[in-house]
Amino acid sequence: MNLQGIAASSGIAIAKAYLLVEPDLSFNKKKIEDSGKEIERFQSSISFAKSELKEIRMVAEKEFGAAEAAIFDAHMLVLNDPELITPIEEKINTENVNAEYALKETTDMFIAMFEGIDNEYMQERAGDIRDVTKRIMSHLLGVKVVNPSTISEEVVIIAEDLTPSETAQLNRKYVKGFATNIGGRTSHSAIMARSLEIPAVVGTKELTQHIQDGDMVIVDGLNGIVQINPTSEQIATYEMEHQKHKEQKAEWAKLVNEKTATADHHHVEIAANIGNPEDLAGVFSNGGEGIGLYRTEFLYMGKGQLPTEDEQFEAYKSVLQGMGNKPVVVRTLDIGGDKELPYLNLPKEMNPFLGFRAIRLCLEEKQIFRTQLRALLRASSFGNLKIMFPMIATLDEFRQAKDILEKEKQTLLENGTAVAEGIEIGIMVEIPSIAILADQFAKEVDFFSIGTNDLIQYTMAADRMNERVSYLYQPYNPAILRLVKMVIDASHREGKWTGMCGEMAGDEIAIPILLGLGLDEFSMSASSILKARTQISQLKQSDMVELANEALQLRTNEEVARAVRARC
Amino acid sequence: MNLQGIAASSGIAIAKAYLLVEPDLSFNKKKIEDSGKEIERFQSSISFAKSELKEIRMVAEKEFGAAEAAIFDAHMLVLNDPELITPIEEKINTENVNAEYALKETTDMFIAMFEGIDNEYMQERAGDIRDVTKRIMSHLLGVKVVNPSTISEEVVIIAEDLTPSETAQLNRKYVKGFATNIGGRTSHSAIMARSLEIPAVVGTKELTQHIQDGDMVIVDGLNGIVQINPTSEQIATYEMEHQKHKEQKAEWAKLVNEKTATADHHHVEIAANIGNPEDLAGVFSNGGEGIGLYRTEFLYMGKGQLPTEDEQFEAYKSVLQGMGNKPVVVRTLDIGGDKELPYLNLPKEMNPFLGFRAIRLCLEEKQIFRTQLRALLRASSFGNLKIMFPMIATLDEFRQAKDILEKEKQTLLENGTAVAEGIEIGIMVEIPSIAILADQFAKEVDFFSIGTNDLIQYTMAADRMNERVSYLYQPYNPAILRLVKMVIDASHREGKWTGMCGEMAGDEIAIPILLGLGLDEFSMSASSILKARTQISQLKQSDMVELANEALQLRTNEEVARAVRARC
Repeated sequence: MNLQGIAASSGIAIAKAYLLVEPDLSFNKKKIEDSGKEIERFQSSISFAKSELKEIRMVAEKEFGAAEAAIFDAHMLVLNDPELITPIEEKINTENVNAEYALKETTDMFIAMFEGIDNEYMQERAGDIRDVTKRIMSHLLGVKVVNPSTISEEVVIIAEDLTPSETAQLNRKYVKGFATNIGGRTSHSAIMARSLEIPAVVGTKELTQHIQDGDMVIVDGLNGIVQINPTSEQIATYEMEHQKHKEQKAEWAKLVNEKTATADHHHVEIAANIGNPEDLAGVFSNGGEGIGLYRTEFLYMGKGQLPTEDEQFEAYKSVLQGMGNKPVVVRTLDIGGDKELPYLNLPKEMNPFLGFRAIRLCLEEKQIFRTQLRALLRASSFGNLKIMFPMIATLDEFRQAKDILEKEKQTLLENGTAVAEGIEIGIMVEIPSIAILADQFAKEVDFFSIGTNDLIQYTMAADRMNERVSYLYQPYNPAILRLVKMVIDASHREGKWTGMCGEMAGDEIAIPILLGLGLDEFSMSASSILKARTQISQLKQSDMVELANEALQLRTNEEVARAVRARC
Repeated sequence: MNLQGIAASSGIAIAKAYLLVEPDLSFNKKKIEDSGKEIERFQSSISFAKSELKEIRMVAEKEFGAAEAAIFDAHMLVLNDPELITPIEEKINTENVNAEYALKETTDMFIAMFEGIDNEYMQERAGDIRDVTKRIMSHLLGVKVVNPSTISEEVVIIAEDLTPSETAQLNRKYVKGFATNIGGRTSHSAIMARSLEIPAVVGTKELTQHIQDGDMVIVDGLNGIVQINPTSEQIATYEMEHQKHKEQKAEWAKLVNEKTATADHHHVEIAANIGNPEDLAGVFSNGGEGIGLYRTEFLYMGKGQLPTEDEQFEAYKSVLQGMGNKPVVVRTLDIGGDKELPYLNLPKEMNPFLGFRAIRLCLEEKQIFRTQLRALLRASSFGNLKIMFPMIATLDEFRQAKDILEKEKQTLLENGTAVAEGIEIGIMVEIPSIAILADQFAKEVDFFSIGTNDLIQYTMAADRMNERVSYLYQPYNPAILRLVKMVIDASHREGKWTGMCGEMAGDEIAIPILLGLGLDEFSMSASSILKARTQISQLKQSDMVELANEALQLRTNEEVARAVRARC
């Protein structure tokens, strides 16, 4: 059978399904006859858990390094802790209850105890016990707990959705594609797939209900289709498609070492969006002219605590050095909304997309912000750094953020630390108020980068993750184009520049209009760069100015798309 | 002690506290010795529940009419149903368990059974059983269940928050004020308090923790303070304040029969926001020149099913007739977001403010929409009706909504039903995209009404109900003022008019600027009308044009507020 979803990352993957779903660990309380035998059963589940942990630790160390592996050492300590294990055995013995019940009752008590103490270390211990309980329970119940970090053969990941921290744990070597139930083109799993350059289909709605672990699967990221247990003819057809796609990519790749220019020699810059230093390889192989968006939040995710200043410094430095003198625009921490950090214990919000996130959080939690800014400033002398603040809504916020940056810079300089001169400080334009007041902002910022994913969702008041209102995610709506124009015009009037780092920058319908509006920098998934450069090389900017002016006077998203298709 | 909150509706109330909080109905399963005695205890709780129901039914019929009272008849049927009651008694008898446990187990089973059937009638029966279970349980446990509809002495309502359906059930005669833990000036409890013209303080955070049912309370809606068990001196001081406030209101009331005009004879219209036909009394006593916003969603709330076409027709007709030939702008159904309708079973959303609500829902659930439009069209010949669609984001949506309206009109006319000619069709401007494309919309709509509460929250990407980002609710931010200007200018260019029905229209800092921008209609809580008319009569429009032009070139909310204060 096949399921239709949304094509989120191009290409075709054919591999076995790896189901990344939460296991069912429910059980009933039972009286047991032979408590000795039950204790043996419990001990044997502990042994299994230990040998499993050892293996995961080994793979994690090899793939992610010692720091990541250390978390599993903490788990091993818990498994070896008699203060936790003995009470469970005693409970089985004295109460004649099953091991599952004794385990859960005992560990729940410890977790509640640790969580009751307002101390970061204790909170982490509670998390460790929770993880270990899950692992022992899975062995008691004979249920498989997924360990994506131990994947060691080629697979396609099948999931309800992929959180950023789950994707961070995936072993990239073996993951050939993604397919998920929920999400759209701008959800994190989609962005991540494009950054890994693997095919992905999202929003299939019910995929996980129809697929078994180990089923053969084709992920058709060109047409948004997932084929489950395909026939050999279907496989053959898809292999041909795959071949054709490869050939087209080879054609695009001819421009890998060229600058980006229109047919009438108007130059623009195509940069890449990245999330990790490891993404640089893809930027080079795709001929990125810079980094237009370095999403630093991945440094903060998938672990139990904040990254240290030195960890951050190393990451920023390696990206800056890697890019030589090419520009690297680093966005400061953008968490909140759909990107949670469990260890910060942020309160649940009714509307997280309209909530306490990004710069709002950084201006409150100043220590977190200062640490990141120091790491960035220290790294600045190793390359061409530009710093960008996310989710700015008012000039007050920008001024506050810039003040904090300036103070950290002064302190570093006083201590004799090298800091690059003239680091450009810009802002994301993702909140409508900024675009509307762009003329005022342009007097104070060095550059703008338009984040269209959020800008569209706020301008249309429609959650881009919510399928019932996804028809309102309209990148070509003239209202959006007018906001983009306001920003570009305002920046040019003050001798500044404007980039775009949302999905729209790599969209083939949007590119002609953006060229016409005078956008200076297009930042996109590395995998989209060569296609975009090829498209731009075939367009004349003078024609695109006309097209853009026409589009600004149209009334609907559809009218604009039609106008572009008619002329390009 | 006293607590500081947000002043949400002016005036001072001094009365006993009425705590509107969910009772704790938890219990333990117990073995009982004498099942006969336990059954007696159960039967006596049923008797109590019956006599209580009878009383509530009587009050409800008197205050709200027979339709509202009928719901309690359904509850009485449940209480008298042997198919439900006998199994509970049998369970007590055979299993020797306490009545609480037998009740819960049995009714849970019936509820699950009814809910499993996909049929509206069965869903309602499940709801009835749930309500009745709660009532019997409260008697078994000796816990008080609050019945706000039976309040029969002067009180101040104290609650975590007040939902629209709870406020709909309140007996207005006795409710002298509100004070809540959460919310801001634009939350529904605040809006409701202003519409009822009773003092309210919201956002006190922890009020319910410090107050007991029956405590004496002062709600100071002028300064946002709640005094718990005040001293007699404090009461005396507040009574003086109350007197002063009354005198000021008497001064403002001198303009009750006047048109609204500036000192240099520029006329504008001050209209009222209402939620119910009963609100007309306040509109008349405050000299409203029309209804700028009739929120129809209250017709849909606080009951178990959709209102019929005839129920709606009667409500609309009574408002239209009541207003004579003065304009009545009716907003079609705006539910979703923070306004839920339990009986529609809408899925939970991650960001309800950016979700499936208002016109988005109406264009999908066309039967609901058509019924309302028919009721409106039928009522149109009884007064001066204007129809307004909420949450329009694109022209496509407006065209679809208008098409549906036109079709219903044709059908009515063909059936010989009278429909007024030339009913104006407008839209709310609460989504940024509309303001930005106002020039295009102005060609197709008859009028705009700017809903600033939502427009500000989307333009600043900040949930107005979320205290952590409430600093971004900035009505004077130049970005907001520019959007308002775009809308007014676009409407005037096409010979149309623009009103404003958000909180901003009655704000004394905003009024001078809105006059300067050329706003045609100011719609606000009836209780704000006379103060606003007095303020406007003291301003010169020509000065305000200058002030507005200056404000549009400022950079922050604070700068604008300062500029207004300096000149007015």
